[in-house]
Amino acid sequence: MTKIAVVYESRTGNVERMARSVEEGIVSSGAEAVLINIADKEADLEAISAMDGMIAGSFTSYGQMSSGMSAFFEKSSAVHQRLKGKAAGAFASSGDFGGGNETTVMSLIQALMVHGMVIQGSSNAPHFGAVALGVPDGTALAVCFSLGERVAALAGKLASR
Amino acid sequence: MTKIAVVYESRTGNVERMARSVEEGIVSSGAEAVLINIADKEADLEAISAMDGMIAGSFTSYGQMSSGMSAFFEKSSAVHQRLKGKAAGAFASSGDFGGGNETTVMSLIQALMVHGMVIQGSSNAPHFGAVALGVPDGTALAVCFSLGERVAALAGKLASR
Amino acid sequence: MTKIAVVYESRTGNVERMARSVEEGIVSSGAEAVLINIADKEADLEAISAMDGMIAGSFTSYGQMSSGMSAFFEKSSAVHQRLKGKAAGAFASSGDFGGGNETTVMSLIQALMVHGMVIQGSSNAPHFGAVALGVPDGTALAVCFSLGERVAALAGKLASR
Amino acid sequence: MTKIAVVYESRTGNVERMARSVEEGIVSSGAEAVLINIADKEADLEAISAMDGMIAGSFTSYGQMSSGMSAFFEKSSAVHQRLKGKAAGAFASSGDFGGGNETTVMSLIQALMVHGMVIQGSSNAPHFGAVALGVPDGTALAVCFSLGERVAALAGKLASR
Repeated sequence: MTKIAVVYESRTGNVERMARSVEEGIVSSGAEAVLINIADKEADLEAISAMDGMIAGSFTSYGQMSSGMSAFFEKSSAVHQRLKGKAAGAFASSGDFGGGNETTVMSLIQALMVHGMVIQGSSNAPHFGAVALGVPDGTALAVCFSLGERVAALAGKLASR
Repeated sequence: MTKIAVVYESRTGNVERMARSVEEGIVSSGAEAVLINIADKEADLEAISAMDGMIAGSFTSYGQMSSGMSAFFEKSSAVHQRLKGKAAGAFASSGDFGGGNETTVMSLIQALMVHGMVIQGSSNAPHFGAVALGVPDGTALAVCFSLGERVAALAGKLASR
Repeated sequence: MTKIAVVYESRTGNVERMARSVEEGIVSSGAEAVLINIADKEADLEAISAMDGMIAGSFTSYGQMSSGMSAFFEKSSAVHQRLKGKAAGAFASSGDFGGGNETTVMSLIQALMVHGMVIQGSSNAPHFGAVALGVPDGTALAVCFSLGERVAALAGKLASR
Repeated sequence: MTKIAVVYESRTGNVERMARSVEEGIVSSGAEAVLINIADKEADLEAISAMDGMIAGSFTSYGQMSSGMSAFFEKSSAVHQRLKGKAAGAFASSGDFGGGNETTVMSLIQALMVHGMVIQGSSNAPHFGAVALGVPDGTALAVCFSLGERVAALAGKLASR
């Protein structure tokens, strides 16, 4: 069974809400989602590296991923080379319009690419990952759901041979 | 008198509306604004390089500045080294949320930095430049006005010694 | 048979050299490469949208893709939604170290993501795509070859179900 | 007297070497440099916010600033609004070519822009900030020296009225 880690840091609960919708999208695709809020518990890198994909989420911190997520990626060098070729995706929340959610999603995507992971854009906006302002509304949560579906489907394809 | 070029490409009129508010912000600061819609007329690079600053604007085209603005920057290599140390700023419009207006503003800023120009961020969102979705509303136009003010003030300071 | 378009703009021949090595990598993987130097001929978007993937290449123009490549992506909106889910990759050349080849590769990747295409990073540097300084040396050409192989392999996987 | 903070994280000593050359450039301009290696001591944000500018440096960590620098920026929200209008700049080191030093410099610049700081690009490469591969050679250190000079000169201008 396809298994996707959803690794994120939430401070106000907004990123947590997004993660829950990403999870629903993954599950609705027949895959398993493992949610890891790094603010609550240390990520188990060995376990993550055995999964089929990873979706990373963050609030916007000075235009990019939070320091917690940054520390997660730094520690993930312990499993470098073991995530390559696996499916990935990203989501981000900012407090304000123009507050950096697009640049934050791109910072997550760059980190996932350094792991050699595989990322699919979206031909409909938001293009780079799921983004939301403040408390995510229904539209934002639907975009998160789609992200979960997309990465789960991609992971299935990548694992198929 | 401080003179600022506002160089932009507008397709639907939204970027044009933003440019008009940028202009008002410049003028309200006691500086002169020279609007150049590159869709209408060729930019006079000699004239621009004699001014005190430049603000670049674009609609979002596949996540970055339009090809027209890209061609403008390519031609601007004719006055390379002559814009350095001058004030600059950027604004961008996208059709949808998450549609790339932040990445577009950053693409303009990168081009302005390659000219050695001087860019000020904003401690309130939007941080990197002025951004808008679709037809710019009052808030978006106020942000454009502030951008004009900020760059005019910066140009004044940079020219002061 | 897997077919990959290699769409690029070369001015000095350096990007052309990179494209040739990308082609060799594709062919060595048992796939077919179709090279399109947009400086020579108009890209056939209908033909490209029928292929299994696209690799985009550019020289560095003010920190990002050339205006020719930017115009290519703007025209490619005619086949928007028809490239989604297909494999993609990018390569870029700059004249100098710190001259913008990484930001140029990222600008190409952002455009490919707006098409909904699928991009794999590399766990060894260069991480985001193939990059070179000036005339590409053996190392740079080997990286281009690997890029061709990687995208061809990815295209094969994505087409497999 | 113009006073510039040089805030950085060094792991192998390479970023430290770059910081020393940035310092020399600042001092040669008649300004004072205060070096803060956040790996050694906590940055005094009150002190920094009383200075005339800040230059941020980092090794490349998954394509962007280190988690230490990210944590520094997160904590710097305590002095948000108090750095705006001040001069800034960035430098970054990566182990390999294409390893992310340009994207790392841009991540630092984005954070500085969120503070409303003022950044000058360079019309000669490297354009966005100082970059180096591994142990910085003479050329890389000269670029760092120039960065120090440029930011000190900019700080002087910005403080002049």
